[in-house]
This record gives sequence, structure tokens and C-alpha cells, in this order.
Amino acid sequence: MERILYTADAPGVLLDVIIAEASPASLFILADENTAVHCMPVLLGSSESAAGATLLVTPAGDGRKTLDAAESLWHRLVDAGATRSSMLVNLGGGMVSDLGGFVASTFKRGMRYVNVPTTLLGAVDAAVGGKTGINFAGLKNEVGVFARPESTIVSTCFFATLPQQELLSGYAEMLKHALLSGTDATARALSEVPDVHVGGLLDMMRESISCKELIVASDPTEKGPRKALNLGHTFGHAFEEFASERRRPVSHGHAVAMGIVAELVLSRMIYGFPSSTLYAVAAFVRENYAGLDVSCDDYPRLLGLMAHDKKNASPDAISFSLLHAPGSPAVDSIVNATDIRAALDIYRDLMQ
Amino acid sequence: MERILYTADAPGVLLDVIIAEASPASLFILADENTAVHCMPVLLGSSESAAGATLLVTPAGDGRKTLDAAESLWHRLVDAGATRSSMLVNLGGGMVSDLGGFVASTFKRGMRYVNVPTTLLGAVDAAVGGKTGINFAGLKNEVGVFARPESTIVSTCFFATLPQQELLSGYAEMLKHALLSGTDATARALSEVPDVHVGGLLDMMRESISCKELIVASDPTEKGPRKALNLGHTFGHAFEEFASERRRPVSHGHAVAMGIVAELVLSRMIYGFPSSTLYAVAAFVRENYAGLDVSCDDYPRLLGLMAHDKKNASPDAISFSLLHAPGSPAVDSIVNATDIRAALDIYRDLMQ
Repeated sequence: MERILYTADAPGVLLDVIIAEASPASLFILADENTAVHCMPVLLGSSESAAGATLLVTPAGDGRKTLDAAESLWHRLVDAGATRSSMLVNLGGGMVSDLGGFVASTFKRGMRYVNVPTTLLGAVDAAVGGKTGINFAGLKNEVGVFARPESTIVSTCFFATLPQQELLSGYAEMLKHALLSGTDATARALSEVPDVHVGGLLDMMRESISCKELIVASDPTEKGPRKALNLGHTFGHAFEEFASERRRPVSHGHAVAMGIVAELVLSRMIYGFPSSTLYAVAAFVRENYAGLDVSCDDYPRLLGLMAHDKKNASPDAISFSLLHAPGSPAVDSIVNATDIRAALDIYRDLMQ
Repeated sequence: MERILYTADAPGVLLDVIIAEASPASLFILADENTAVHCMPVLLGSSESAAGATLLVTPAGDGRKTLDAAESLWHRLVDAGATRSSMLVNLGGGMVSDLGGFVASTFKRGMRYVNVPTTLLGAVDAAVGGKTGINFAGLKNEVGVFARPESTIVSTCFFATLPQQELLSGYAEMLKHALLSGTDATARALSEVPDVHVGGLLDMMRESISCKELIVASDPTEKGPRKALNLGHTFGHAFEEFASERRRPVSHGHAVAMGIVAELVLSRMIYGFPSSTLYAVAAFVRENYAGLDVSCDDYPRLLGLMAHDKKNASPDAISFSLLHAPGSPAVDSIVNATDIRAALDIYRDLMQ
């Protein structure tokens, strides 16, 4: 189990604690072009141990989470004489922790790594749980491994300059965790919007991450219960990819928020998920997240994208992680194309 | 723990058992250019389940265990619609199981795989224990993961056409396992040479693999006790790479046999390893394995190659897995350059 450490303002100080305990043979810090400028000074300014680290900078954007990027980082680790006793710190959002986690976990069959997420989405989603990987052949995270970071430092100190849209993107995953936790957590989540200037965000993150940790601990390699964390993601990934194809990209979190609504519709249709909660979630998403224009003509492409999801046992059986009710997951729900189309009809009505 | 199944003549029949139990969504068989010709017909001829499998053929030779080869196989799995519920059968020597194991373990974060080793070396070494990987930046297995196969089918039926040199290459790892087991096992190993035409080879393999399994089970990711299996490999890898650089390549097993002698010399120097056993092993290796010409002028290059070994915590501290006595390992033995040179002097005397 990885260790998760929470701090309001000085991740570098916590990093010193981790480094002192691990005493790595050498230290590497991976950032993307953005976090190298905006976050690296924060980390280096409050850490003594990081001063002698080798800095690795990779191009920014999920589209650059490629085999080429991994190959380049492996080369730089070789050239710098990294060993299994070295340590890699991933300073960035999900793209950096996915890529860096994969590179570290496969370098010499496994070098230790630490995540320092710099976005809300990264903190509550990608940085915790050990899913690492790269995109391949146009498919998200098609190549990767399950490998837990040694520690993750969760801090709000990088969020001050994040746009509200970025916070909302992360909040979609927190809404998902609330739905997986139960009715009370869902009601709390729907009564707030994330605000970095208001105290309490770190506590909300702690509650949200704890929900994820419990699920991951029960099933680290996603054979069963962990699949619950895919709620909203079968539609969500299809929406995200579809929007990208139409050159009107939406963020991962926005796509997931819309995906949650569509999958709660399916949950209502198939398992009688409570309609009051469905409507409340739909209203929250409609109010806070920009909608994606989808027409009937787009259904075949959306179905095609969903057929390629990693979670499917075969390309013909589209598998969803749904809910009987808040706190009561129904994983491995195979849904036919007719029901998926019907859910899209209702989703479009709800989001208008 | 992976399951290891032993058979004298019909691996395909055992494969049917595994496939029936696993009921994979689709089946893939990976072979290299040699095993595709010589071993695939044996497997397909005695298996019903394998008939509908997708065959993947990769270029032969450890030098082709590359990122390019892995990339090509990932593409072919994507194109063929492989899912996490598919299964990959690695039919070949260590190169095939290392490459195929890495590709399967990283495809969609982990697809099931089965090893069917076709060489003695593959059976007693690479196919068991879950070390997978590719060569990278001129370094052996520099990128990889620890990931156990679901099952391994150990059979002598592919060995009938193997040259004796190939059997001897595998026997070097069996000699290593015997040294790790104890004095009796070592004496037995030194009293035989591998002969596929004489009954008993499968039983010898079973004993040898059991030794490896016990060690791997105690430490799957090589944090401590598993390092004992590196006996002979710090010198061995350096000898292998050195021979390759001089365009007089020796097989992995031959290099390991010579490496065992050199590292038993170190074991004698540092831990008082019994000289009678050292001389007996040296005589056996001198008699059965072609020597590698090494002169004093080659010591710097050999030391340089050893400095790059994955097992080193830093490039300046060369780490060995030695023995106090047969059955009594001494892992993490840091040895200085002076002692390494002295060991090479004695090794050269013993091998003349």
C-alpha cells in the first residue's frame, strides 16, 4: 500500500521526509513543460533534498503520453546512471504520473517512484492506486502496468493558479467517489463546488481519496470490485475521444461528469437507481459542466468508441460499471446497443 | 504462484487443459522464426484448442528482444482485438518468454500468458519466475516487469533436435541451482551431463526448477533472497557482452558457466567457499564448456561492463551474489576492483 501524505502548503518538506527514509542512490524529478515552470520552483524552494536532483522535462498534454516519450525518459535514466535504488518524483497532473509511473515501474524491472500531483484531478484520481501507462495506437492507456507509487503527496498549494474549469474537471472524479460512497456523501458533494480559496478542500480530497483507496485495496489489479471506479468512464472516454475527433476537445473530468449522468441513466433503466439522485446529479452537471452536443447521427461512432474499451471481454459486449444505488456498485454490467441508444436519448433530454 | 506442469511428450494436451480452465476470449501464440518452424507444428499437432489461435512470429535472437519488437506485437494484439481476457502462449526459448511476457504483462495493464519453453535454458531459467523484459540502450533486460505467467508447461519433447551445446547452455543454470541447493545436489550435477536421449532429464529439470521456485516464492521482486539466483551472472553477463563485442559470441549458458567459476573464486577469497568444490566445478566447466580467451588487457572493459549491472546500487559499487558454501548464499557482496582482478587471474589459471 502506498503512503498518502496531505499538506496544505509545503510538499517539498514532506518530500524531504520521504527521501530521508528511502535514501535513494540518486533522485530524478519528472515534470511536463508547464509544471516545470509553475510547480518545480515551489517544490525546489521548500525542499533541501531535491536540490541535487536530475530534472527531466517531457512535452505537456495527454497526447504526448506516448511510447516515444517513455523511450526518451528510459534513455535519460540510463544516461544519468539511474539504478533500482534511485527514485523518480512525478510532479504534474495525471499525464505525468501515468507516464512517469510506467517508466519507473519498467526501468530495470522497477525503480521506486513518488507522485506529487499538481492538479485536483491528478490528486484524486491518477496519482493514487497505481494505474500507470501510455496511450498506444490511438487508444488511451493501452500499454501500462499496475504499480503503486511508494508515496503520494497530496497538496492544495499548486491549485491557486489553476483555472476553475480545471478544478471542476477534478471534481467530477470526487463526485464519482461520493456516488460510490453512499447517499450522504453524494448529497454533500452536490451541495458544494470546489473552491481552492475556501478552507476545507484538502479535507474533501482526503475523504474522496480514502474512498478510492478502500476500493483499490480490495482489488489492486481490477479483477472485480475495483471496476466500480470506472463509473462514468465508459461513456466518458467515448465522449472525450468523440469531442477530440470533432476538434472541440473537452477535459477528462468534463467528459466523466457527462459520462456519470449517462451511466446513471443506464443504472436507472437496468437497476432502478433512484430517480431523485439521478435528477440531482444531472442538474449539477448541467449547471457546472459545459455540455457536449451529440445528435442521433453520432450514436454509431460513440458505440464504436465504447466497443474498444479495455474493460470489455470482447468487442461485441460493452461492459459498464453502474450503480444499484449510491454506495452499491454493479460492475460488469453488459448492456446492448438498443439500451445504450435509449440512455443517450434520455441523457440528451436531461442535459438540455 | 504460477503453475508448472511437466510432460515428456505432449505439451499441446496440457495446453488444452489450461485453455479449458482459463476459457480465454481469444488465444495468441508467439513464436520466433525458428520455433515457428520447428516447435509450432508439435504444439498444434497435439492441441485442439490452439487450432483457432492467432499466430505471432517475431525475429529470432536475443538481439531482437527490442522495443521495436514489443511495439510491433502490441500493434498486432490491438489489430486482432485482443482483450484482458485473451491469453498469450509464448512458444520458444528465453528470448520469446522474456519478450512475450513483457508484451502481455503491459498490454492493457496485463493480459494472461503461458510459457511453453522449447529449450533447456528456457525451461530451467527464463520461463519460470516472472522476470520479463527487453534489451534497451545496449543493456540486457533494461526495461521490463516482474509478472508471473499463469502457467508454464515444461516438456522435453522439443529438445530432441537441439544441439548438445544448447543443452549444455541450459545445464549451466541447473548447475547453479544445484550449487544453491547444497553439497549433495552439486555432487549429483557434476556427475552427469545432460542427455535428452536418456530418461531422467525431466526429473532433473523438476528438481532444478523446484529450487528456483522456492527461492522466487520467498522474494518475487528480488529485494533480497532471490538475488542468490544471480550467482555466476555478474561475471557471466560481462563475459557474454564482451564476447559479443569481440565478435566471438558465446551462449548465455556458456557465459554463466564461466561466470560461476569466476564467482566461486571470489566466494573462496571472501567467504572461504570450499576449495574442493571450486576445483570440481572448474574442472567440469573446463571439460564441457568452451573457454573465453581473456587477457589482463581486457580487465578494464570487463569491469566497465560489470559496473552497468542492474543489481548495482551505484555504478561504483559492483555487487555479486556469492556463496559461503553450497546451499549457503551471500547476496549483496560488494567487491572492489582489486579483488575482481585477482579473481580473474585465478579464473584464467583454473580454466587453462
